[in-house]
Amino acid sequence: MTRSRVLRRGAAGWEGVEARRYKDEADHHAGVARHTLLAASEPEGPGFETRYFEVAPGGYTSFERHAHPHVVLVLRGRGSVRLGERIEPLAELDVVYVAPWEPHRFLADGGEPLGFLCVVDGDRDTPQVMREDGDPR
Amino acid sequence: MTRSRVLRRGAAGWEGVEARRYKDEADHHAGVARHTLLAASEPEGPGFETRYFEVAPGGYTSFERHAHPHVVLVLRGRGSVRLGERIEPLAELDVVYVAPWEPHRFLADGGEPLGFLCVVDGDRDTPQVMREDGDPR
Repeated sequence: MTRSRVLRRGAAGWEGVEARRYKDEADHHAGVARHTLLAASEPEGPGFETRYFEVAPGGYTSFERHAHPHVVLVLRGRGSVRLGERIEPLAELDVVYVAPWEPHRFLADGGEPLGFLCVVDGDRDTPQVMREDGDPR
Repeated sequence: MTRSRVLRRGAAGWEGVEARRYKDEADHHAGVARHTLLAASEPEGPGFETRYFEVAPGGYTSFERHAHPHVVLVLRGRGSVRLGERIEPLAELDVVYVAPWEPHRFLADGGEPLGFLCVVDGDRDTPQVMREDGDPR
């Protein structure tokens, strides 16, 4: 389906958009669901992919780095982001730019879920998971 | 500045991001401000551009079409979108995909501002403004 459309937001997410696993199970992430709002594979679609991630309270994404940048916008709840060695608190509507190769992790460490939009180029490299000390695993 | 950063959302918008004119003044739009959250011109940045538009109550964007698609997410208020001949109501967190060449207009016709994120490819064509009857102006 390639024509224009509205994806309505309901109580449980967007109509017609399923919550999926963030990644295969692993010890470097916890409590993360992925919703692909608009795939880059859409015929004649944009060159970017629009995803929503929701991290359950206490959960976190992988600490990782890659060549492609991220543009993130917080849509729900609060938490924090680790960018290299620094940790920044996050609240609704804050925008995060994750520069190329910056090791990063999103954490729902505020006793609430942390939901955020994350836009990436459709053509992008595979993330490299990092150890807590910043070396590749 | 190309490194990772957090743009915090304050009462008046995002810190360090100015509200600018949507376009030169014209009779085919009214009450629209543009905030560029992350430009595609960012060195080593993504191939897409992340903008926020806010339409004042009673305002509207140009009725226009172009080859590049839009991915839109409503962040504030309510209103509607015209997609070709149909009009769809919009509320917070609704997502709109505007397919290539679909004539479209966003309207703050709900007595409230309508604020939305709009992501586009960095490399894109110039919009063609349409008459209300759907012919090019």
